[in-house]
Amino acid sequence: MSARLFTFVGGESGAWRITRMEAVTGMPLARAEALDIVQGAAPGESTRAQWQLRGITSNERYVVQEEKARLVEKQQGLGRPEAVCAALIPIRKSAEWWSLPQDARRRLFEEDSKHVEIGLRYLPAVARRLHHCRDLGEDEPFDFLTWFEYASVAEAAFEELVRELRASPEWRYVDREIDIRLRRELSQ
Amino acid sequence: MSARLFTFVGGESGAWRITRMEAVTGMPLARAEALDIVQGAAPGESTRAQWQLRGITSNERYVVQEEKARLVEKQQGLGRPEAVCAALIPIRKSAEWWSLPQDARRRLFEEDSKHVEIGLRYLPAVARRLHHCRDLGEDEPFDFLTWFEYASVAEAAFEELVRELRASPEWRYVDREIDIRLRRELSQ
Repeated sequence: MSARLFTFVGGESGAWRITRMEAVTGMPLARAEALDIVQGAAPGESTRAQWQLRGITSNERYVVQEEKARLVEKQQGLGRPEAVCAALIPIRKSAEWWSLPQDARRRLFEEDSKHVEIGLRYLPAVARRLHHCRDLGEDEPFDFLTWFEYASVAEAAFEELVRELRASPEWRYVDREIDIRLRRELSQ
Repeated sequence: MSARLFTFVGGESGAWRITRMEAVTGMPLARAEALDIVQGAAPGESTRAQWQLRGITSNERYVVQEEKARLVEKQQGLGRPEAVCAALIPIRKSAEWWSLPQDARRRLFEEDSKHVEIGLRYLPAVARRLHHCRDLGEDEPFDFLTWFEYASVAEAAFEELVRELRASPEWRYVDREIDIRLRRELSQ
């Protein structure tokens, strides 16, 4: 059984240095200098973290067979040595989104917004892992945490990727979004 | 914001008396005499519970617009005075199920198994609330907890409902299922 639960800990030190934090929509997150990604539940409250965000990897909610095959064929894993840039993008969607039936959400996600189609254009340069938060409990501040890794040479492409997604009809349902950019710290 | 998280506590006393517990598939649950349904997180470990099962209500995963409209029109809420019978059916699905893309799971759920179509035939007699567990954490013993309430006169119909669902292709992916039947305790 592979690990599914991850905690993103923002604080004073960590494996990733935070280079930029921007509240794209809604309330900002407290400023932190660095980030660690911890497998499993959050460390205790006693740590000097500014914030801890939890998410769990899960089954696909919208991707169909043919899309999955193309994704699996093109995508690469996290941890590539050249991927020294990263982004953590926590997102919350509105109550209106969550009250939509499955077919309406799928239509917005792909037929209207081309979420998979857009993502595929940036593979294999951008690697990603999606974490779900909404069903971890009642009080989670976000619905999703997406973690992206890419090489310096792909920085402009990554800007284009997030720009395209934010311009899509699906993003009308995003009511909180934070964009956190990071650089891997050199080994000491 | 309405409450989404519920804990089902099986022990020596509670608002519902357990009349039958059966392990339909996989490992049984410890025998308990009675059940309480608690809003929110589980009470501490110090309670004399035999077991505590947590689940969270969430957005629909498969139901499409037209099905949702028919469900909303026909279904009734929990807590009807005449609904003195209940069932709690915890279910876990296999890793194979969870690795299927969305369209394959939807096809199994409805086109092959008529999950909504079957359920609609037993409305409004049977009221239900579905709770998700799989994304609460890594160590949940079940993926879903479904709670059903119905009047004594609907007992035979309820047996037919579970029999139909268990005979469906979707149920080939169920690798653990407990069937717990209950009667509401008279007020003291």
